[in-house]
Amino acid sequence: MRILITGGLGFIGSNLATRLSKQAHHITILDNLNPLYGGNKFNLHDANLDNIDLIIGDARDKELILRLVKDIDVVFHFAAQVSYIDSLNIPFEDVEVNSVSTLILLESIKKLNQKTKIIFSSSRLVYGRILQTPVAENHITAPLSLYGIHKMVSEKYLEIYQRNYGIPYVIIRITNPFGIKQQMKHNKYSIVGWFMRMAMEDKVIKIFGSGEQKRDYIYIESLIDAFNKVMLNNECENKIYNVGAGYSIKFKEMVNHIVAIVGKGKVEHIEWPTNYESIETGNFEVSLQKLHEDTGWINSCTFEEGIEKTFKYYKRYYEEYF
Amino acid sequence: MRILITGGLGFIGSNLATRLSKQAHHITILDNLNPLYGGNKFNLHDANLDNIDLIIGDARDKELILRLVKDIDVVFHFAAQVSYIDSLNIPFEDVEVNSVSTLILLESIKKLNQKTKIIFSSSRLVYGRILQTPVAENHITAPLSLYGIHKMVSEKYLEIYQRNYGIPYVIIRITNPFGIKQQMKHNKYSIVGWFMRMAMEDKVIKIFGSGEQKRDYIYIESLIDAFNKVMLNNECENKIYNVGAGYSIKFKEMVNHIVAIVGKGKVEHIEWPTNYESIETGNFEVSLQKLHEDTGWINSCTFEEGIEKTFKYYKRYYEEYF
Repeated sequence: MRILITGGLGFIGSNLATRLSKQAHHITILDNLNPLYGGNKFNLHDANLDNIDLIIGDARDKELILRLVKDIDVVFHFAAQVSYIDSLNIPFEDVEVNSVSTLILLESIKKLNQKTKIIFSSSRLVYGRILQTPVAENHITAPLSLYGIHKMVSEKYLEIYQRNYGIPYVIIRITNPFGIKQQMKHNKYSIVGWFMRMAMEDKVIKIFGSGEQKRDYIYIESLIDAFNKVMLNNECENKIYNVGAGYSIKFKEMVNHIVAIVGKGKVEHIEWPTNYESIETGNFEVSLQKLHEDTGWINSCTFEEGIEKTFKYYKRYYEEYF
Repeated sequence: MRILITGGLGFIGSNLATRLSKQAHHITILDNLNPLYGGNKFNLHDANLDNIDLIIGDARDKELILRLVKDIDVVFHFAAQVSYIDSLNIPFEDVEVNSVSTLILLESIKKLNQKTKIIFSSSRLVYGRILQTPVAENHITAPLSLYGIHKMVSEKYLEIYQRNYGIPYVIIRITNPFGIKQQMKHNKYSIVGWFMRMAMEDKVIKIFGSGEQKRDYIYIESLIDAFNKVMLNNECENKIYNVGAGYSIKFKEMVNHIVAIVGKGKVEHIEWPTNYESIETGNFEVSLQKLHEDTGWINSCTFEEGIEKTFKYYKRYYEEYF
């Protein structure tokens, strides 16, 4: 298959590209290497580069996208502004990157080949405040952040273009992903990654409030399994799937595991900043039944195993990420 | 009060500006006079121009909006791409005009004066397929068109900026407005207006299907009453209101009334075009209880009275609109 991966040097994109490059696929990667985002050329160090074309460019560039989409079978659309906290500070960038880029892809596919499938990485944050757990895909979507709104809008674009032009899609709503090849340079990309860095540098890790809120953290390998499975399974077309670990742990437990496995770092509890409280979504426990039933996928990795693999990776490739 | 009206030369904006200009308010009108939209300088012919500043410019112009919003008490945000059918053909324009322009207003108000209230004209089309009637404001929002999505996104922006910065808003979801000062040059602006023109020119009016779908058509005078009331009533802040006639008539009855009152025109039934069917929302009957309870507003005009007034207006000012 001919596959386009936007944001393909980033965390999820590069892990997927590495996996797919070892199968018989041809992969085009698009990434703008925005230093605040997750793109890192080193992320392809263990990929089969014979099967990869790398294009440095922007998912908001209409002409470029029209050129890249030609003859593509599947587009994985990962290019994104990923900080839901930041989205309120850079609203115009957030709407462009997280919503309009999807519209640009759809318009290109509409013009060139309406059989091209888009697999879109959405987020648990489209649900907003959690009204009932476990959260299934038909839970109300009432996002609390601009980030969540713009991810939801991309989902709605996919549905509308499917209905009007038959363009197939799969929407993957990811819980909290973590693991190797993630941006570690600042605290806005991933809380697990950032806390691991803090621990590795023996610093104080600050937890807002008592850290009782529950989250579902999925290790990158399991997540890539899921993307691979939905790509190959026509059953999954035009559907929305949650992907997560399938069990939640308390925020403070997440931190304690990291500190224990890294063997360094200290924990301190501090007050919630005002801005954060208004977008706190409450406990999150996800239902993965739909994905399991349609594809047989199961999460093959515990949180602790994931943290151990992640720690081992960053210890070895420290200089490429810190 | 100092009032900014975006899209203030258009259908709703100019009727409101005319009304407010006769009270003791100072009004700034912003309009880009896009020939496909509703702006028409003649629409101010009976306004008190001493109280109006007219600025020809675009609601997508960040610097202009920042300048205009200074010292304003209330912004009525009417500037919009108004054709839900067209929204799929001009997706980038639709997102810019119907979503991003609201974000630009909010960012300007956030910077200058967080007490400035925005009164936003949204649409029944945010509801999507109607699941239960009468439709109250808490009906699920699942828009079927890009237009409906982008109006919904503007609503969500208003909610988020209110929660984070305290900027007050009122959202008005309008059913099907009609009346004087509406664009009559093409069929994309208003079905009632266009059919009136067809009838006045003694042409054949084509109805898709049997015309049994029910719609709620509100005459502009009643709608302006509602905007005036919510502006003056602090009870209405940070709430969403439906505004409509409060009773629905069949599509074919709407046409028959027009033909009867105008005394010309013929009716013909034709097949639904494919594209339209996928965004047909089903019968629409609206609940106006919330607006009535909070403001005492009632619809003071029947459909027939509205059509008579509209016909009289266009007969007199034919040359300015046709």
